[in-house]
Amino acid sequence: MTAFKELMAYQRDTAALAQVAGRLGWDQETVMPRGAASQRAEEAGAMEAVLHARKTDPRIGDWLEQAEAPDAAGTSAIRLIRRYYERGVKVPADLAVAMARLTSRSQGIWAEARAKDDFAGFAPVLEQVVALKRQEAAALAEEGSLYDALLEDFEPGMTEAELEAMFAEMRPGLVRLRQTALDAPEVAPVRGTFAGKSQMKLARSLARDFGYDFSKGRLDKAVHPFSSGSGTDVRITTRVAEDDPFNCIYSTIHETGHACYEQAIDASYLLTPLGQGVSMGVHESQSRIYENQLGRSRAFCSYLYGEMQEAFGDLGVADADGFYAAVNRVHRGYIRTEADEVQYNLHIMLRFDLERSLISGDLAVADLEAAWNDRFKADFGYEVDVASNGVLQDVHWSVGLFGYFPTYSLGNVYAGCLMAALRRAVPDLDAQLEHGELEAATGWLRENVQQHGGLYEPKEVIERACGAAPTAAPLMSYLEGKFGALYPG
Amino acid sequence: MTAFKELMAYQRDTAALAQVAGRLGWDQETVMPRGAASQRAEEAGAMEAVLHARKTDPRIGDWLEQAEAPDAAGTSAIRLIRRYYERGVKVPADLAVAMARLTSRSQGIWAEARAKDDFAGFAPVLEQVVALKRQEAAALAEEGSLYDALLEDFEPGMTEAELEAMFAEMRPGLVRLRQTALDAPEVAPVRGTFAGKSQMKLARSLARDFGYDFSKGRLDKAVHPFSSGSGTDVRITTRVAEDDPFNCIYSTIHETGHACYEQAIDASYLLTPLGQGVSMGVHESQSRIYENQLGRSRAFCSYLYGEMQEAFGDLGVADADGFYAAVNRVHRGYIRTEADEVQYNLHIMLRFDLERSLISGDLAVADLEAAWNDRFKADFGYEVDVASNGVLQDVHWSVGLFGYFPTYSLGNVYAGCLMAALRRAVPDLDAQLEHGELEAATGWLRENVQQHGGLYEPKEVIERACGAAPTAAPLMSYLEGKFGALYPG
Repeated sequence: MTAFKELMAYQRDTAALAQVAGRLGWDQETVMPRGAASQRAEEAGAMEAVLHARKTDPRIGDWLEQAEAPDAAGTSAIRLIRRYYERGVKVPADLAVAMARLTSRSQGIWAEARAKDDFAGFAPVLEQVVALKRQEAAALAEEGSLYDALLEDFEPGMTEAELEAMFAEMRPGLVRLRQTALDAPEVAPVRGTFAGKSQMKLARSLARDFGYDFSKGRLDKAVHPFSSGSGTDVRITTRVAEDDPFNCIYSTIHETGHACYEQAIDASYLLTPLGQGVSMGVHESQSRIYENQLGRSRAFCSYLYGEMQEAFGDLGVADADGFYAAVNRVHRGYIRTEADEVQYNLHIMLRFDLERSLISGDLAVADLEAAWNDRFKADFGYEVDVASNGVLQDVHWSVGLFGYFPTYSLGNVYAGCLMAALRRAVPDLDAQLEHGELEAATGWLRENVQQHGGLYEPKEVIERACGAAPTAAPLMSYLEGKFGALYPG
Repeated sequence: MTAFKELMAYQRDTAALAQVAGRLGWDQETVMPRGAASQRAEEAGAMEAVLHARKTDPRIGDWLEQAEAPDAAGTSAIRLIRRYYERGVKVPADLAVAMARLTSRSQGIWAEARAKDDFAGFAPVLEQVVALKRQEAAALAEEGSLYDALLEDFEPGMTEAELEAMFAEMRPGLVRLRQTALDAPEVAPVRGTFAGKSQMKLARSLARDFGYDFSKGRLDKAVHPFSSGSGTDVRITTRVAEDDPFNCIYSTIHETGHACYEQAIDASYLLTPLGQGVSMGVHESQSRIYENQLGRSRAFCSYLYGEMQEAFGDLGVADADGFYAAVNRVHRGYIRTEADEVQYNLHIMLRFDLERSLISGDLAVADLEAAWNDRFKADFGYEVDVASNGVLQDVHWSVGLFGYFPTYSLGNVYAGCLMAALRRAVPDLDAQLEHGELEAATGWLRENVQQHGGLYEPKEVIERACGAAPTAAPLMSYLEGKFGALYPG
């Protein structure tokens, strides 16, 4: 057997084990008995140790020296394996172990602090997380930027400088749109009680409309919606609030976007380094374009309005226009995950700036809550009331995810580029969406983005799909068109 | 750290990984999307390879040489680890791999052959399984008996000779009871349509009655009922046939017995070698005593009769006596898993004798179907009609489980001993069972058997609980009392 074949066989087992570890996470969030949590932590830790040992096995280095790829997919696979391996060996084993131990503990401390709105209860452990994260970044970065080194885990090739420029381009337009919308009379939300069973039935039907293959996945309820797994076993979850059907509906469509990406990857890439979405930003572009550009479009809302009337009866809105306005209402709020398309990216910018300061050392954890609250006031115009609506609202930092937040906005930017290209490719898109026909749209995304998995670099896959390097301009133009019409000012 | 501590820490991770692998099996049988089967085979194979490598890691040998146990539990733990390790290193790695590959394939071939009633389609692969199994037994046995070496995997310390004597003691009484019952007028089964939802609701309630802790487990539907997992995550499955409520009810009670054993093991043994049931025979003693000696008793049937009338209305039997007779009816049949308490052990004896002949080489696979059919005719008095009712009915041999079948009867024998001791310990047991009160019975089993996990050797735990070495006499006396009364002849 050649070194290439040996390397790929080894990597295949590692990928299979990673799927098992991922499914353990799914199990924990959906079906695990509540009394099993502490045993489960040991099981997950043991799996993590196996995966870590495999990913840094020195045999990989030997194989990489000798492996010759037989084709383009092989070349990409070697490139990705080299990236993971070099990342793995740069971080000292005792640092990796310390980080794993700390973050398995710190997430619980965060959850407790959030429940009590007590940042001071979380700050000491967050300080330790930031300290270890800075050590990790230093090990990875060698001479380069600490934050860029962390970004690399989520969005290979992306830099702090590039994101800074992107956000600077977006900010004025978003602030203007937001102000106009908040100055206008508030649009009422859809009100009523929406039976959980009917919501789940509709969610299933919508997932199917958007191309989710239930023979290779399943939809369950969980506290936090997520998509999990690759290849032929990609499971999604959603949540149900009986007073707010859009929570369930748009969480489902969002996760369907993530899942369809994984399900659509070329079958020959299964359990190879190409067999999963190429980056967080590209992943998020799929979930966002399904959820927002398609799912919250005027045309699709007209179809959804009919579906919801059928499922729930009268919705208390005058007509499809009123429904569309309610779906896309811009209003005051604290929580990122509940924000509309305009304000969402402002939430991300706040986190991006604060986490960069934490990693650079310019901001101490002790000052983080005050910094968050000042910045929120400046950006949103009102005070944070409680820490769970502010600095404690997101899990990310508690588990050491620094450099992750900006990929959400990058996903929006990529979705903007893809939507413009999709509209050029499918001129009668709206006429199809009005009838709930999504095959042309999702088929175009499958063909141009999803099937490639990890074959191309993140920006490359967007550029190939759109015919030009991605910029924030299409997203901004889309938002200005959409929200300029909804809130003419 | 001492060698003992290092060994136990290593073993703990292995045990945690074994739990993950087991849960993957649960997932496959309950919630896995149907399109995921082939990916799942790779995932399970990768887990198996990790576990095999860990179990035969030469460091275990080094630790075992130096480890000093600090207490009795530690002594038992070392004894068990040594047993697994010595077993693991005796079997050459290429033989273990060949067996794993073959049996992952042969089970599918068996299922296909069973569906077509085509033993000839299964025979070639079974020949290979038997050949590898004989090699494995030879490697394990060194100079001793091949079959004893295989038994050791399921029932440490048990021998072919001892089982032969046990079956010889049981056979005449069972044949006599069976004949008397079959000569009597046939008892009609309970007939009707029993809604699946109501069956599952009753199953849940019965599992709870028998002490199953739903905070450390869950009950789902699966094609074949099973119990899976140890410690704080022990899940059971059952099945539902709308024309036969007893299938669901007694499968549930049976699996509850297995699961309660795992749930009751001393919490300090979690993820140690003591943290699971000590043998198949002792495990089966718990499932059987829950299902049969308790669940099918006259007293409990009177309670269950009321529960079932409440759940399903009129059952078409005259009274509690008629219900008890229907639950315990002895009638002609081909299938082991559907057999009553009398005939069940005759099914096992048939398999025990045939599989010993296969392993010794006295019986060729080519002659197995004829041998099965001849023996069935001799033991049961009528001809096997199709192979799925005969030699193809059980999955065991297809996956290389030789030496497993007798542990079912051993479980019955142990259950007989335990029931006699339980009656001595709880004189008013029937009065409690009549009201569905199981706490005294299950509490006694928890205290005297279940909590010990792997602390004692299998026979030792039964002897400690009963005050005397186990024999078949209490089971035979129980069966003669029960079925002699039901079928006085």
